Amino acid sequence: MTKRIVTSIDVARLAGVSQSAVSRAFSSTASIAPATKERVFRAAETLNYRPNRIPSIMLTGRSGMIGIIVGGLRNPLYGSALEQLSSGIRDAGFQVLLVQVIDTVTLDAAIDQLAGYRVDALVTALAIGSEKTAAALSALAIPVIAFNSPLTGPGVSSVRSNNRESGRRVAHMMAEKQVRQPFWLGGPDRNAASQARKAGFLEGCAEFGMEVTMLGGDDSYQSGFDAITTALADGHRPDGLFCSNDLMGCGALDALRDRTGFSCPEDIMVIGYDNIPQSAWHGYQLSSFDQRPDALVAAALDILTRSLANPEERLSETCVIDATLVLRRSTEKPV
Amino acid sequence: MTKRIVTSIDVARLAGVSQSAVSRAFSSTASIAPATKERVFRAAETLNYRPNRIPSIMLTGRSGMIGIIVGGLRNPLYGSALEQLSSGIRDAGFQVLLVQVIDTVTLDAAIDQLAGYRVDALVTALAIGSEKTAAALSALAIPVIAFNSPLTGPGVSSVRSNNRESGRRVAHMMAEKQVRQPFWLGGPDRNAASQARKAGFLEGCAEFGMEVTMLGGDDSYQSGFDAITTALADGHRPDGLFCSNDLMGCGALDALRDRTGFSCPEDIMVIGYDNIPQSAWHGYQLSSFDQRPDALVAAALDILTRSLANPEERLSETCVIDATLVLRRSTEKPV
Repeated sequence: MTKRIVTSIDVARLAGVSQSAVSRAFSSTASIAPATKERVFRAAETLNYRPNRIPSIMLTGRSGMIGIIVGGLRNPLYGSALEQLSSGIRDAGFQVLLVQVIDTVTLDAAIDQLAGYRVDALVTALAIGSEKTAAALSALAIPVIAFNSPLTGPGVSSVRSNNRESGRRVAHMMAEKQVRQPFWLGGPDRNAASQARKAGFLEGCAEFGMEVTMLGGDDSYQSGFDAITTALADGHRPDGLFCSNDLMGCGALDALRDRTGFSCPEDIMVIGYDNIPQSAWHGYQLSSFDQRPDALVAAALDILTRSLANPEERLSETCVIDATLVLRRSTEKPV
Repeated sequence: MTKRIVTSIDVARLAGVSQSAVSRAFSSTASIAPATKERVFRAAETLNYRPNRIPSIMLTGRSGMIGIIVGGLRNPLYGSALEQLSSGIRDAGFQVLLVQVIDTVTLDAAIDQLAGYRVDALVTALAIGSEKTAAALSALAIPVIAFNSPLTGPGVSSVRSNNRESGRRVAHMMAEKQVRQPFWLGGPDRNAASQARKAGFLEGCAEFGMEVTMLGGDDSYQSGFDAITTALADGHRPDGLFCSNDLMGCGALDALRDRTGFSCPEDIMVIGYDNIPQSAWHGYQLSSFDQRPDALVAAALDILTRSLANPEERLSETCVIDATLVLRRSTEKPV
């Protein structure tokens, strides 16, 4: 059975009005007699008619769609941030065109495809890796909001977390609590946010004359578990551990729990990053930096709204949100 | 500074060819001399030109976009499934128009908006709640794939997990292990999948003459923790617990861990649903049903591909995927 899409001609025929009256009834700006509008709407409901957005995109050059480029969605932090961002964009009257970039598809190819759909603006949750990509984004001639990227350009704004400062803060905290063997558990090198946290942590530790032992993971829970299990088996006895994200932090805590006679927070303080729901679970109680996704998303939506209202200004703003350290059992001895 | 979008006229001028030659260069079907195509591509690269998809949508009535309707993204399961679905859709050459439906926005409104963008197909991860919504989806005259919904119609196919059968299986397993006090920890009533699991579990328990005590949560970790903490404080001593999802299951395990002298799996077997990454974490080791999102997504993509190839057939298929029970420490005494 074939089913034809209902057009404005069908609605006009049933309502006994002209096709142009149907267009005017569905436009928010055109004038039309209330009685005619009512007749059109009744006919449209009967026929299950939906106005086609495409001709209006042709005429105005605006699609009403905002592209969002994301990496993986398995980290609970991203799911939650995307949920908030997507809600905010819809509340502002736009649709979300989602592009998920995995390793094999480059960010540049995604930019090309989104441009073809004439998205009105672009939000990228992937850190921009190169000046070339920043230039390509700028050349799109639409507002671009980049998360976690220091690179900006005409029309390209940045909303980011103060990663370096957070790293320094952990170093100061460890110095205060007289940590002697601080450890860093980092993610993949290509993660710019993780690199900034590490840089700040190393700087801060150097100020206090603390030498940092470096461990590496891939941002997953299991990699955190494995890194600490191996370090302990190798005879290391860290008394301070800063993890580049909470997934690895939870893995580290489970590795410590499996080790009898060496417990957290009595023998080691552990701090994570992202404040994912699991860090608050009773089994972990991991102290962690809350990047305040609400604030990051609100800042992004604010710049987006102003950019769309005045596209010719080619806004290029940088908004830095300080992360909040949430203290839990992994750093605080129970009183 | 204002920046104008580069058009095919600009490319034609720089390449020294006609505007129609530019169109033909970017069409996969039109014929054009290789040398001319090369000239167009060089000019396009210099000017950073991207062909506009919108006129082609006007002409063909196909947008190359597939709408995905999702609920919340905070449950790790949904993030992972969306990641796979979105990758598969992009591999098939389509873009993803994402609509997130929260409680205040109805599914019906989302359907209206997606129809306006002339999406080529629709995948809804939200269970369809009524015959009316199923009819509205059918009236779209595009292929629709509904997850976790028994309702289908012309053009509307269903891909779902065998929830009821899983519930029965848990009951049989508990009977085998001589459970005497089986408990059910369910989510909100509006969750059709959770209701089906419960129905199967109750049926199975009734067969073996086991009476089930019912606990309720809201699908969150904390609600599972609270429900079990309260039940234990009230003097209940369940020896079997089936949780409608893993988030509540992890909460239940933490509540049991906090309770000295009553441990899992020695005194109680616990089974969850979804097989989220956290269920495999060393701190939980929760036995759980893997809904096989890979298989569900593959089935959805298969129906989608065939539906798009033959839209006039208005395919209406039902594909039921059996969940796999992954056994871990929460049901198995360590040997």
